[in-house]
Amino acid sequence: MVRRLLLAGYTVSVWNRSHAKTAPLAAAGAVAMVDLDQAVASAEIVISMLEAGPVVGQVIAAALPALAPNTLWIDMSSTRQLEARQFHETLQQRGIRFIDAPVSGGVGGAQAGSLAIMAGGSAADFAQAEAVLTAMGRATLVGPAGSGQVSKLCNQLIVGATLNIVAEALLLAQAAGADPTAVRTAIRGGFAESKVLEVHGQRMLERNFVAGGQVKTQIKDMHNILDAAQAAGVTLPVTELVTQRYLSIEQIYPQADHSAALLALELSNPGQRVGTAADRLG
Amino acid sequence: MVRRLLLAGYTVSVWNRSHAKTAPLAAAGAVAMVDLDQAVASAEIVISMLEAGPVVGQVIAAALPALAPNTLWIDMSSTRQLEARQFHETLQQRGIRFIDAPVSGGVGGAQAGSLAIMAGGSAADFAQAEAVLTAMGRATLVGPAGSGQVSKLCNQLIVGATLNIVAEALLLAQAAGADPTAVRTAIRGGFAESKVLEVHGQRMLERNFVAGGQVKTQIKDMHNILDAAQAAGVTLPVTELVTQRYLSIEQIYPQADHSAALLALELSNPGQRVGTAADRLG
Repeated sequence: MVRRLLLAGYTVSVWNRSHAKTAPLAAAGAVAMVDLDQAVASAEIVISMLEAGPVVGQVIAAALPALAPNTLWIDMSSTRQLEARQFHETLQQRGIRFIDAPVSGGVGGAQAGSLAIMAGGSAADFAQAEAVLTAMGRATLVGPAGSGQVSKLCNQLIVGATLNIVAEALLLAQAAGADPTAVRTAIRGGFAESKVLEVHGQRMLERNFVAGGQVKTQIKDMHNILDAAQAAGVTLPVTELVTQRYLSIEQIYPQADHSAALLALELSNPGQRVGTAADRLG
Repeated sequence: MVRRLLLAGYTVSVWNRSHAKTAPLAAAGAVAMVDLDQAVASAEIVISMLEAGPVVGQVIAAALPALAPNTLWIDMSSTRQLEARQFHETLQQRGIRFIDAPVSGGVGGAQAGSLAIMAGGSAADFAQAEAVLTAMGRATLVGPAGSGQVSKLCNQLIVGATLNIVAEALLLAQAAGADPTAVRTAIRGGFAESKVLEVHGQRMLERNFVAGGQVKTQIKDMHNILDAAQAAGVTLPVTELVTQRYLSIEQIYPQADHSAALLALELSNPGQRVGTAADRLG
């Protein structure tokens, strides 16, 4: 993401809790900073990309005294909606503007500058952020602060559930005497088509469960989705079941790819199995 | 489908229980037959496209005495797997060959000659059928007789379940304070992308529930899927729940489009609703 910003002509200061990680970016043209204060003090826009909400909160708290008024902070980490709303409130009280802008598309999308960027914030702040975000991908304003995280959760909900559905279709094909590889080929391009059928359907047929997106991450996402649903007062029955399905393999395959939804299904159908390839678990 | 066959240069005799329905096809170059015997007697290949398995069984029984040995019968209707196997057995005993080849893609796909055609039968019979099928769409051999129907059910399983998932994502987006229209736009093209998100996601946002594929047809499909799963000895938990979801609106919206999965979800979440448009139910 830093490389895409440099490529677009921006001056980028980089800071990491492990300073050594900034070296390759410094070599690419970024200015590596040892101190967080130093990194944020003169910035018009600060972008954070961290593991989860609690770490984002710590970094915001540490940076806060050094931030100039009217700075725009864009958090591109995946956090809970509630955390993003709290960041917005904390920063707003100090005259700092905030957008939550989590991404989808993985390392490949980051390298290609083709990330899906889901932004929550005011229209005015998004207008200022848009050119910078566009250097990294396709940015869409989806609502007020916290909404970017909601959109990311909607994305994860659809992905996790579709993985379970494709697994059920392939196991049915196999068990009913059809060739699951040919069935996948036959139904592609029609109303059953999805990115998951394309990418993870192929993985399931090859029994390649090397992550990719890990089962434990998908479970974390499912919990955050159900928390957001509860906070919003809605019950999502399929999402609840999909969470149970992933929990059934939490202890066995925590680091496998989330296409291990197929392994969960086979565990609850003893003696049934898609294909004859050996499992690859990494 | 007849028009595509004529366009590809085949001589096509047409027969329908309601003879008047053959008139437009006769005008297009087909030979309209009054008697079923007459229609099938000199055919190398007989294609049936009927409402459901029981009707196919009746037409096969009526045509059987007139069929020449070694005729290839291609049933493109959607039936149960068990019915397709029975047709295969009945015809085989009389030296008639059989392929089940149900389709996906609707009227538009039929007109464009772009149907997804899922064929069950022997490799030799498929080889003979392939040129004729290719005139109507993209044909894939997915296994022995009955497998075409299995593949169609896998297709319907994925479509019905994905409709429920997209509905849950849009309702969560709305209830959590994001703009569901913008969320759909933001997540398109990533791992959450599907034909259902593209086509039916838009329908749900517009609250356009005019069929399209009807709820009652989706329920018939779900029952056939669960029957096939039971016969094959597999349990499909998400598919079972999706069936329950559709059954919850069977009496209320039988003729609505199956994207009424959203209406089922809203019924179980009183006070929650995606968007402000009025419902269009046809």
